[in-house]
Parts: sequence; C-alpha cells; structure tokens
Amino acid sequence: MTEFSEAPDIEKQVSDLHEILEITQAMAGEKRLDRLLKVIMEGATRVLGADVSSIFLCDHDTGEFYSRFIQQAVVSEIRFPLDKGIAGYVAKTGETVNIEDAYKDDRFNPDIDKNTGYRTRSILCMPLVTLDKEIIGVTQVLNKKQGWFTAYDEKLLGVFSNNAAVSIDNTLLHEENIRLFKSLISTSSKTIDARDPVTAGHSQRVALYAEQLGRAAGLDSLALNELEVASWLHDIGKIGVRDDVLLKTGRLTDQEYKKIQEHATYTSEILEQIHFSRELKAVPFIASAHHERIDGKGYPYGLVGEKLPLAARILAIVDVYDALTAYDRPYKKAMSVEKALSILEEGRGTQFDAALVDLFISRRCFNIERRQYQRISVDLTFEIVFLSNDDQIKCVEKYGFPKVDDDVLESADANVEEDVDGGTAWDVNAPGKAKGIRVRDISASGLKFETGYYFPINNFVSLKVVIKSIDLTVLCRVIRIRRRPAGTGYIMGVEFVNMKIDEREKLLNYIKSLSAEELQTPIRFL
Amino acid sequence: MTEFSEAPDIEKQVSDLHEILEITQAMAGEKRLDRLLKVIMEGATRVLGADVSSIFLCDHDTGEFYSRFIQQAVVSEIRFPLDKGIAGYVAKTGETVNIEDAYKDDRFNPDIDKNTGYRTRSILCMPLVTLDKEIIGVTQVLNKKQGWFTAYDEKLLGVFSNNAAVSIDNTLLHEENIRLFKSLISTSSKTIDARDPVTAGHSQRVALYAEQLGRAAGLDSLALNELEVASWLHDIGKIGVRDDVLLKTGRLTDQEYKKIQEHATYTSEILEQIHFSRELKAVPFIASAHHERIDGKGYPYGLVGEKLPLAARILAIVDVYDALTAYDRPYKKAMSVEKALSILEEGRGTQFDAALVDLFISRRCFNIERRQYQRISVDLTFEIVFLSNDDQIKCVEKYGFPKVDDDVLESADANVEEDVDGGTAWDVNAPGKAKGIRVRDISASGLKFETGYYFPINNFVSLKVVIKSIDLTVLCRVIRIRRRPAGTGYIMGVEFVNMKIDEREKLLNYIKSLSAEELQTPIRFL
Repeated sequence: MTEFSEAPDIEKQVSDLHEILEITQAMAGEKRLDRLLKVIMEGATRVLGADVSSIFLCDHDTGEFYSRFIQQAVVSEIRFPLDKGIAGYVAKTGETVNIEDAYKDDRFNPDIDKNTGYRTRSILCMPLVTLDKEIIGVTQVLNKKQGWFTAYDEKLLGVFSNNAAVSIDNTLLHEENIRLFKSLISTSSKTIDARDPVTAGHSQRVALYAEQLGRAAGLDSLALNELEVASWLHDIGKIGVRDDVLLKTGRLTDQEYKKIQEHATYTSEILEQIHFSRELKAVPFIASAHHERIDGKGYPYGLVGEKLPLAARILAIVDVYDALTAYDRPYKKAMSVEKALSILEEGRGTQFDAALVDLFISRRCFNIERRQYQRISVDLTFEIVFLSNDDQIKCVEKYGFPKVDDDVLESADANVEEDVDGGTAWDVNAPGKAKGIRVRDISASGLKFETGYYFPINNFVSLKVVIKSIDLTVLCRVIRIRRRPAGTGYIMGVEFVNMKIDEREKLLNYIKSLSAEELQTPIRFL
Repeated sequence: MTEFSEAPDIEKQVSDLHEILEITQAMAGEKRLDRLLKVIMEGATRVLGADVSSIFLCDHDTGEFYSRFIQQAVVSEIRFPLDKGIAGYVAKTGETVNIEDAYKDDRFNPDIDKNTGYRTRSILCMPLVTLDKEIIGVTQVLNKKQGWFTAYDEKLLGVFSNNAAVSIDNTLLHEENIRLFKSLISTSSKTIDARDPVTAGHSQRVALYAEQLGRAAGLDSLALNELEVASWLHDIGKIGVRDDVLLKTGRLTDQEYKKIQEHATYTSEILEQIHFSRELKAVPFIASAHHERIDGKGYPYGLVGEKLPLAARILAIVDVYDALTAYDRPYKKAMSVEKALSILEEGRGTQFDAALVDLFISRRCFNIERRQYQRISVDLTFEIVFLSNDDQIKCVEKYGFPKVDDDVLESADANVEEDVDGGTAWDVNAPGKAKGIRVRDISASGLKFETGYYFPINNFVSLKVVIKSIDLTVLCRVIRIRRRPAGTGYIMGVEFVNMKIDEREKLLNYIKSLSAEELQTPIRFL
C-alpha cells in the first residue's frame, strides 16, 4: 500500500480514489482525442482542487508539444516547441515538478501568461508515461485553490496520469486505425476510378456530395460515416469489368452495357467479403444499390421506394449528378450545373426520391468546398481551397477564361517521371497533420503542388498563405493538371490571378530567408 | 463518497482501491481479448480474496456466452447457452447475484462442477455494463476464501467491473478494426489477382509462405504482421497495368515487359498514399521491393545486399516460388516442388539471399497448411484442411489421379449464377467465427462448399467432421473449382476418397435429423 505524507484524512483518500476510478472509466470510453483530453483536464482539476489543468502531448516528428481542444464547436490544435518551459523540462527528464511560485523558477516560461493575462502561481507538472515506459506528454495542473500542491497531490496525480497515459495511447491508436482504414479505401477507390479518365476523381466527389446531402437530410454522425464509406466504395465492382468495355468511347452493345451494369453486383459481392464492423454493416448493400430507382426500375435489386435505405437514395442522386457535371477529356464536355439539376428534377419521384432531390437543390448540396493545407515551416502555412461551383461562376464572370500560358510552369512537367522513380511522394504519415498538398515549385507567377484532388483546368482555387500573423488570400487559376502514374494523385499548376506586387515580394522574400533547417519541405524556386 | 456496510478497516479500503487502479491501467493497455480476460479474472480473484473467477461474454447472434483463454499456448474458446445458470440470470436481468451456497439456489447449473470435479460454494456474479448501458457479459467470482462475499465485495467488484467492461468493449472494437483492415486488404488483393487467371490466389499463398519463412528467420510478431500486410499488397500495382498487357498469353514485347515491370513502382506509389500506422510504416517499401535482387540487378531500386530489408528479401523468394509452382489453366503447367527449389538454389547469393534460400528449403517453408471451418449446428462442425505439398505427394502415391467423374456434383455448377444474383454470399461478419467455408450441398459421395481459397483440381484436402464428441477425418479430392464472378471466392467440389460406409451413414443421418432451427446454415441434399 502507498503511504501518503501530508495526507488528508483517510475518508477523503477513499473518496478521491473512487472519483479517480469513475474518471478512469470515462477516459477509457472516449474514442476522440479532443474529448478525452477534456475529460482528463477537468478530472485532474477537480480531484486536485486546482484552478485549471492542461495536457500537452509530444510530437517528436516536429519537435513540438500539441494539444487539441474544442472551441466554438471547432476542434483546434495548439503547438509549441518541446524544449519550452516547465512542460519541456518534465518531458525531457521524466521528473515531476512541483512549484509553489512559478515566477521564482527559471524554467517557467511566462509568455503564455503575458498573452492570456492569466497569473500562474503554483504548478504541479508530471510526465504521461505509457506501459511501455514511453513519455508521451505531460499533465500540468495550475494554482491549487488552497495553499500549494502537496506530496499527497503528487501521488494522486501520479495514479491518475498513469491511467490517462494508457487511455491517450489507446485513442491515438484508434485514430491511427481509422486514418489507415479511410486512406486505404480512398486510395483503392481513386486508383480504380483512375483506370478510366472519365471517372477520375469520381468516388471522391461523390463522397463529398453525399456528405452534404446526408447532413441536409439529418443523418447522424454514425450514418454519415457509413454513407461516406459506401460512397467511396460504390464503384469498386468496376475492377471486375474488363478494360475493353470500361474504356470504350463509342456506343456500347447491349452485351457490353450488361457487363457495365454488372459492376453493381460485383460491388456487392466484393464488399460482402469484407468484415465490416457493426457500424458499417450496411455498406455493401448501400454501395451496391446506387443504380436503384425509387420506382423499382433500377438494378441490381429492383427495389421500390422506402425499401431502399435513405443512404442508397442519396447515393443514387449524387452519383448521377457527378457523372453529368464532371469532365476530364476534350471529347466529353461537362454539363452546366443548371442543366444537371434540371435532369435530377425530371427524375423526381421516378428515378430519384423527390424530397431528396428538392433538398439537394434547395440546400445547394452540389456546392462542395475542398481544403488542403501544408506547413512549410513553423511560421508559414499554405492552404488551398478548391472553390465551390457558385464561387467558380463568380470568378469566371470577373476574370474570364484567359488563354493559358503554357510556359509559366514549364519545368513543372519535366520532372514528373523523376518524382515517381525517386519515390519522393510526400510523407502522408506525419502525425498531427491532415494529408495535404505538397508544394514543389514556386515562382513569381504561380505555384506547383501535389494534391490528391482532381480539379479541371481553368477552375479557380483560393490560396491562403499564413506567415506568422499575416494572412494573404490569393485567387489562383488551375493551368496544369497532370495525373501521376497509377492514378494516385495529381501535380497541379496554378497561376496567381489577383496577387498584389508587394504581397508577392513579401512571400518570396520570406521563403528565401528560411534556412534549410527551418524549411520542413524542400521547395524549389523557378 | 460511497458508504460500505460490513466494510473492512479503512486502510484496507485505500489499499484495495489502489490495487484496482493498478489493474485498471493494465487492463486498458491490453489489446488482445484472451490476455485481457486473464488480467481481469486474476485481478478480481486477488482483490476479492476468492478462489477463482470467470468472465463470460454475450454473443447475441448465436445466443451463447463465450470466453477465450490460453491453454498450452493455444487460444481456446468455450461456449454455452445464454440462458444457463447464474450467469444467464445475471445477463438477462442485469442484477447482481451473491450466494452463500450455490447448491441451495435453483438457478445454479451444476453441470460444470460435474465435468470438472470442482466444488462451487459461494458465488458473486455481476453484469459487465458498458458506458452505453449495454450488458456485454458477466463477471463471476467463486468461493470466497474466508466466509462469503459481503456487500463491500459487491461494491468493490462493481467498480472493478465497470472499468473491465469498458476495456473489453475497447478490445472488441480494436479486434473488429484489425479484422476489417485485414479483410479489406485481402479482398482487394484477391480481386486484383483474379483479373489474371494465372495469378488467382497468388497474394494469399505468398502471404502464407512469407509467414513460414519469416518465422523461420526469427521475425517477431510485429515484423511478421508488417510482412503479412506487405505480402498481401505487393502486387496491388498491377491495377495500373492494362488488361491487354496483363492478360497477354504470348511473348511480351520489350515495351510490354517494361509496362509489367512498372507494377512494382505503382505498388510503391499507391501504398505511399495510405496512412500506415507506426507498426506498418515499412509496408510500401517492402511491398514494392519484391523484384529486387541481392546483387543489385533487380528493380525498381537496384539495391544491393543488406540495403534490402529482411522482409523484402523474404518476399522476393516466396514470390518467385509461388509463381513457379502455382497453376490454374491447362496451358500453364505447374512446376514440381523439387524443380522450383532447384531454381531458388541456382539464385543463391545472386538473385536471392543465400541464407534465406537455405532456410526456406531446410525448414520446408513451402509446406503451407490452410484450415477453414464451419459450424453447421451447435453440435456439428466441418473443418477443411488443405494439405501441405508433402502430404499431397503422399496422397498421390497412395490414391493416384483417377479420372474425375463430372457427374458427381453436376448440380453444383448449375446455380452459381443464381447465387450471385440472389446475394446469398455467406455471412462473413458473424462474431466469434473465423471466416470459413460454407457448405452448400452434401451427397453420399462428396461435398460442395464456398471458400476463399483457391486449390487446384486433383489436390487433396482433409475434411474433419466433428459431431458432438465423435471426430471423423475424411480424405477428399478436389474435383471441381469454379471462381465466383468478380473473383471474390470459389465454389469447390470435393469427393470423399476413403470414407467408410458406416461413417457416411452416420454423417448423413445426423444432418437429416436436424430441424431447420438447429441448422445454422441451410444445406441441400443431392
């Protein structure tokens, strides 16, 4: 049994331990990191009778601490260097630090107090150690309400932190598993789509449209998740259709058309071999029912009305919408949004669920916005926003479609092959970073980057550049899109449309000023 | 604070709670169900001062309790009906049962005592309730060492069980995720292999051979896991090779050969898009290096010797071995094991790692045995063992290759189409069951079943039939193998080779005696 010095009466000890056991149970049940950290921080504050607590986790890849929290319904992340302050000392040495007055300790970093106006007095900071004896972060409890933290508090927080560390480790593993699963299905689907130039990017866009319509229809997060997975996988059966049929550009014979139709059956057959978890149980059925019609004249099941799950009725609409509006090759021109919507309306109540068609149009679910970002250095981030259809139209009205200048990023294409052979695809596994773009070349007139998204030439994207506290938003036009071999991503070239000269100077000068160590990704200057 | 009646002195309470917190941490860290249940059972026994404890989990799909434990290094599972005994009462009502003398309680089921010779006296049995208030099983603690279980014991076990339930739920979810991930990669790989009849089943066999050689080379379980995933995915780049090249049966032009070679680069490019977890980080590199040679003359990297990871050197050997020995079509005859091994030996030290070739041969890693099973009813199980090469040779010596009688299972093929359209593929998601065969037809002379394995005609399989306590082992010969559309599995027909007449009678009579309710899978009689 553990002995406590300066311990409170023993009834209080029993009550504290019971409280910790209750929090432990709640921690173990949390699958999302932001919510888990909240449970831990609030628990530590309460049990120790403190004012506030923080958890900082180590990201050894970037040399930073990070923490995630929910602010105004959005999950935010903060980051600071691993060697800073008391937290840095504790993470490095594995020692517990218990200070009565922070301002009398050299290790204390008063910057955060300065920024927030908070006045730190006492600090109890402990390492978060997993069962494998790895330090994954620190728990920091501030300002004991009465007096300062005692040796008893240290022991209590020790027991608490041990359990917290295991829960955090589990949650990180769970998030890793989810990321692995999602990237596996999205990569497989993109690769299959890319076999046929006309369908490149199709499953990805269908997943985005489906999410919009699913949200509009009031699906909960579990149902949305199931719909997303089904959307990504709905055309996986095309892997069973031979190239000569799949890639035929002329009119299909009845026999060939039947072969194409079989892909829905193949989708079902392939997906039924996969051990989907309870929450994804309906994926094979939803995915294979994307060519069903509300009047029962669809395939492969011929189900009528409500017999089709809501998710399948959503998928049927967004699949057709994307097939109509997407384009890739000169011989296949994209249909306008208006025309495509009128075709959906024609199918109201026969091909499609009428209420869902109305929702798709009235809520403008066809407006999808895609964002990707890249951190170039600690202080510089690029964010690309692929504009929605509405915004595209506005940009075209304002800037038109000028003649594309093929020379702008001439060197961009020269080394596509080199890239593939050298295996320099960007690191998609870096923790704490959404998979994003990878900027490869920058010039005074444009940018070249790798991205998982397909976006047609002459469309507009918005580039948000964040340098320290300065935000630039620059409109760009896609002038080059080139598929990487095996269809796993794209090299996209964009030119700046409305960038001011002084902004351009600022950006280029800043990037050039960075040392090789500061640049987290090598960028070439053209 | 919780009040305890009949509570021990308060120092003992503090010590008990500390012990529970330590066990809680250990529980949360366990990813494997069998080990987790061990931690919980031993912990409950110790904390409550009892003689022994059990955990029984509910499988609502089969209406049974199950538990998993390790016995002689093998993970075993026991099952019994959900409505039996004290455990059944607790799972049904959610009540705690605390009995001083089991034999005075009508709900007690003395069968297990009878079988084991154990003498149950006192029982404390509590439901395992998750945070979602779902009862997922029960904890049962037996024979308090001094006296019987008190109200204090109930409260202590309550706190303990709450945490145990959350950990069990997490572990089940983790196992589900792993199963989902593995089935996703195996299904994708099988589907891609099946595009080319010559490579059907290739990735699966390569994974099995690689595991054998990896074990022989002393890889630990993490490295074996990485090798397995890389094996399944090593040919995924073939999805980027066009049918006209991939399926060409004649000699390839240099250009076409180069296209085929590119699949290794495509494999790397596709896999680098996937967010592999820390433990699978090397998968893209290992998988794409399966055509590397130890002398540096391989592709795509041209790496020499130790620069190639051990896993890649293993993959290179087993990939070639399977390509040489596998066959599917009349025009491609399989090479004998001896000839294939001599080709590996020729490549010792130039194409292949010499020590690994020696290990592959001396440890007979080419002998892979595949097992699949199906429960037909509570008391009847079929297990198919696909015999190893060694055993195949012995069987051929003894039984020869008789003329295959095409009529034996004539009806087997007639309804392949019907099966696909009806979507009657077997339920691969049933919890607690390994994905197995699905017996469809049985006759006096043979069996027809669905399976994920490919096995050539005239090979032998061993069928183990377990009816209650009777075990029959019957040798069978593959007489029909038919790929299901989209290549997701096979319909296999086997004939009994050495089944005794009385055994056959027993089996058929037993199956015919089963009522529709008892049959967990419908089987037709020919």
